[in-house]
Amino acid sequence: MIEIYLFILDIIGTIAFALSGAMVGINKKMDIFGVNILAITTAVGGGIIRDVIIGSIPPTTFLHPEFAVISACCATALFSLCFFHKDRFFHTDLYEKLTFIFDTAGLAAFTIDGTIKGLNLNTEHSLFLSVFLGMITGVGGGILRDLFSNKTPDIFVKRIYACAIIGALMTALLWKWY
Amino acid sequence: MIEIYLFILDIIGTIAFALSGAMVGINKKMDIFGVNILAITTAVGGGIIRDVIIGSIPPTTFLHPEFAVISACCATALFSLCFFHKDRFFHTDLYEKLTFIFDTAGLAAFTIDGTIKGLNLNTEHSLFLSVFLGMITGVGGGILRDLFSNKTPDIFVKRIYACAIIGALMTALLWKWY
Amino acid sequence: MIEIYLFILDIIGTIAFALSGAMVGINKKMDIFGVNILAITTAVGGGIIRDVIIGSIPPTTFLHPEFAVISACCATALFSLCFFHKDRFFHTDLYEKLTFIFDTAGLAAFTIDGTIKGLNLNTEHSLFLSVFLGMITGVGGGILRDLFSNKTPDIFVKRIYACAIIGALMTALLWKWY
Repeated sequence: MIEIYLFILDIIGTIAFALSGAMVGINKKMDIFGVNILAITTAVGGGIIRDVIIGSIPPTTFLHPEFAVISACCATALFSLCFFHKDRFFHTDLYEKLTFIFDTAGLAAFTIDGTIKGLNLNTEHSLFLSVFLGMITGVGGGILRDLFSNKTPDIFVKRIYACAIIGALMTALLWKWY
Repeated sequence: MIEIYLFILDIIGTIAFALSGAMVGINKKMDIFGVNILAITTAVGGGIIRDVIIGSIPPTTFLHPEFAVISACCATALFSLCFFHKDRFFHTDLYEKLTFIFDTAGLAAFTIDGTIKGLNLNTEHSLFLSVFLGMITGVGGGILRDLFSNKTPDIFVKRIYACAIIGALMTALLWKWY
Repeated sequence: MIEIYLFILDIIGTIAFALSGAMVGINKKMDIFGVNILAITTAVGGGIIRDVIIGSIPPTTFLHPEFAVISACCATALFSLCFFHKDRFFHTDLYEKLTFIFDTAGLAAFTIDGTIKGLNLNTEHSLFLSVFLGMITGVGGGILRDLFSNKTPDIFVKRIYACAIIGALMTALLWKWY
């Protein structure tokens, strides 16, 4: 049962972060190849870091091409869409709002996902481990996206990222108690 | 016996790098949340990279919350202190000197720590492995700090980092001979 | 037999990427120490990421000092050469062409190398795994070089990197069929 929830969370997070990465790439005037690479990196980056840290080798992303394929499809669709409506779309309220929604949805989905995977490890000290792991899974993709597009990662300037810690902590506590 | 020395080195390195990370964050006008994240990243980043490379999974940092807690306390204390004395403190000789001292203390403590952990692995070729590992442990946190605050890492422009190699080499040689 | 080919590929890739990293460092006016560090990082970075992802711990680079030594020799030689002929060399067509050649040679050698190492793992889904792994091995060193010298990684702006995927795919298919 829990596998299905985790899978749905993974899909939501992948789509949201792929769109978020693609929007940053398009905004930086990358071509379609760069936009795809940035979208895939944003979508799978957090998961790869999480798997390396808990020793799940090779990382899930490398065994399941579907996540990279979904990311590439989202990025290509958004790139095509923006190609025809560029002037109407960027530097508008809609753009700001959509970026915020995608970023937040991806952050939430991956934070919960990482926290639950940490709790399933059944090691000692697992509360701290899983909260820390959930946070890194949630923010990892966004940090890579911001590093690669050469700006200070959002995590250091936007308060929204504080939610990753609170979200991870709440997930871990709810999981332990129920 | 050696565990106690390593523990003391870890504590010294953590405090020094947390303060170094916090000062860079405050200087970049981050808010208290960003300063804390940057301080924790700087303090534990080198150790996480070291543990991933030698396969000590999950990394020590994830099992011992105390290092993250110490870093957060140092960062919050420094942030509060600077909040009231900002004008008197930044862009002064004292600021430059303190940053230099914290950076150097953290670099020294983590380089020795990483080198000794590498030597304890007892693999072949362990001299090169442990010198390289000590260097990465020492400079890793500072590189992450500089990447995340969007500047060229100090290691490429400040000569002080050359000491990391010399320190790692001396630690390894002393360890082997005595 | 295949070990010899892989070793030759490793040597070619190491020399090409060390020279590519050294040229970026010299262009950014780093001193000889920074140029050496950047050359070594560029040359061994992709391989370390590859080994961490497939769980080959500690990474080959840490057990074989020769790759770091070769990189340092290449970087020091190039630095000395440029020290005496700086004005004649930089901002010329020759400089652009040489950077392009070194970058492409390193990318090709490491992509094939990473793909074959992925195929040798003999896991399920090995086609996608090895193509992805080959790509990361090929582009990893260049991404680290660009992050550390504070510019947007070439992979997002230069089309040449699209070849990494095609090269990895062709290597994997040829390997499976013959």
